[in-house]
Amino acid sequence: MCAGTGPIERRGAIAAAAALGLALSAARGFAQGDPLPSWTDGAAKLAILDFVTRVTTKGGADFVPPDHRIATFDNDGTLWSEQPVYFEVMFALDRVRAMAPQRPKWKTQEPFRSVLAGDNAALAKLSQRELLQIVMETHSGMTVEAFRRTVLEWVATAREKRFNRPYTDLVYQPMLELLGYLRAHDFRTFIVSGGGIEFMRAWVPSVYGIPPEQVVGSSGATAFRKTADGEPELVKLPRVEFVDDGPGKPVAINRFIGLRPILAFGNSDGDQQMLEWTAGGGGARLLGLVHHTDAVREWAYDRNASVGRLDLAWDEAVQRGWLVVDMKRDWKVIYPFEKQ
Amino acid sequence: MCAGTGPIERRGAIAAAAALGLALSAARGFAQGDPLPSWTDGAAKLAILDFVTRVTTKGGADFVPPDHRIATFDNDGTLWSEQPVYFEVMFALDRVRAMAPQRPKWKTQEPFRSVLAGDNAALAKLSQRELLQIVMETHSGMTVEAFRRTVLEWVATAREKRFNRPYTDLVYQPMLELLGYLRAHDFRTFIVSGGGIEFMRAWVPSVYGIPPEQVVGSSGATAFRKTADGEPELVKLPRVEFVDDGPGKPVAINRFIGLRPILAFGNSDGDQQMLEWTAGGGGARLLGLVHHTDAVREWAYDRNASVGRLDLAWDEAVQRGWLVVDMKRDWKVIYPFEKQ
Repeated sequence: MCAGTGPIERRGAIAAAAALGLALSAARGFAQGDPLPSWTDGAAKLAILDFVTRVTTKGGADFVPPDHRIATFDNDGTLWSEQPVYFEVMFALDRVRAMAPQRPKWKTQEPFRSVLAGDNAALAKLSQRELLQIVMETHSGMTVEAFRRTVLEWVATAREKRFNRPYTDLVYQPMLELLGYLRAHDFRTFIVSGGGIEFMRAWVPSVYGIPPEQVVGSSGATAFRKTADGEPELVKLPRVEFVDDGPGKPVAINRFIGLRPILAFGNSDGDQQMLEWTAGGGGARLLGLVHHTDAVREWAYDRNASVGRLDLAWDEAVQRGWLVVDMKRDWKVIYPFEKQ
Repeated sequence: MCAGTGPIERRGAIAAAAALGLALSAARGFAQGDPLPSWTDGAAKLAILDFVTRVTTKGGADFVPPDHRIATFDNDGTLWSEQPVYFEVMFALDRVRAMAPQRPKWKTQEPFRSVLAGDNAALAKLSQRELLQIVMETHSGMTVEAFRRTVLEWVATAREKRFNRPYTDLVYQPMLELLGYLRAHDFRTFIVSGGGIEFMRAWVPSVYGIPPEQVVGSSGATAFRKTADGEPELVKLPRVEFVDDGPGKPVAINRFIGLRPILAFGNSDGDQQMLEWTAGGGGARLLGLVHHTDAVREWAYDRNASVGRLDLAWDEAVQRGWLVVDMKRDWKVIYPFEKQ
């Protein structure tokens, strides 16, 4: 996980213990306590504390000045849950039902017919193309402000089925702590996600403490136009503009951020190129993957998952010594509500 | 210039004087002195001080919380000079000459032949399409890092002809002060320019104090790929991805920032839609145009200019009471080197 120095596990026990002591005391100095209380005291937490201590220690070999402390995080499966389907797909399906009265054709037109009929067998078989069609149709035809209001209303009222809670309750407490810990050390924390950029920006600032301009995602095209009474507006069009997944992630990082991250976290093969891009370029790096291993508290899936598959990126992580976070082992708490 | 309250000039003299007193004392309180010393004590400076005081005064009717204090600035002609041709075009022409040994065909192929022959009459007649071709050819075929190094080398060595100085010396001291004044009041200052995003990001952080992720511009496509020895790289392709001009500016603001600015500054018709978009949406606003009126210290041009034409946007500014900054009248100093 730490390019240039080799993975922490390979160091001698004494060096590791010393590093832990240094990292923990640095962390205590900053927060008067453990900055990552929901992480168990294992190798994952150690690697994070060690990395942040090294890149923020002035005069140290790995010191990175604050203006280059860029951290990028995938969202689905890395900062919040993504099973059994991406939550944004649940939003889109809810929108199909809400918009149906204005779209009478949908009653007979696939894939909308299956959604409206609650035909779960058909829904489970939807192709990527059909899903994209549903997302495009429900994410366009309104102004960006109207879309934002719709997302906020959904976030406030919709309930995830398994936990019967708002979807935004299903964010990972250990990752919230990591985001805060990094920002307290002058990192700028970005989301770089395959999710829709405007879907995320509606709720991300209040949930993760990340401002809209630090949220990068997939997007549909928008057009500037004037209303009949001359008011300018931006309208969302049913046309894919950019898919922020796989090799699209380093492209988007370059376009939106213009600096190479020194830390990147993902959880699936769609994050592999982001981690590779972050790993390159020289200097201290932390590359992390969240491995979903806890079917009791969250979900357990990896190589054979249809959503959030972790296969090639896992192999590369093992081979290159990137940090693989085992949810079950490394996280004392998954969701914030477990603490209540 | 202040949507919702009407332009400051229309207020009574007493109210204006009171506002100036309030604004100046607020400014003094923050900086122990005039935060805009290169601006003459006229209506333009007053409008800026008044606006910033109003949106940052807690409990005031126009208060805007820090997370919504977004300011966007055009670059060419707004933050630095743009005559007789955009400085990035000068960079591209220099690159044609530097790259010519590796491009033997250019000796006979227009528009490159004219550039290499120093045929100024032909150069003056280059079409937009030919200029774009020159920019595309000189801005592609290398990694993003190699391009960045090339820009930095050019910035360090090239000299603007009229003043015989580095191009980055031709930035506007009053605008540097405005950027700093806004940031001191918790504004995030963005560039939203028709210029190339990677061209600007190379030098903008050190010259304007704006980080790369707050620089928005036109872009060519990039591709993620691996070198023969497996190193990931991003390569610039000779294909236009986005033109950040005119109606493209509000589209880019939405895509990169995700919030509507409350202050926007431009200088030409290419900024009109950015100002319109910023003016909409309700709440206090400051919309500004830099009017180039000083042929002695800088350049004088507006309605008939081929570069930086200010025509339709000027009419709208007059009609709507936006702030039109008269360089000759409103700026004591144009360039930082005049102070030395």
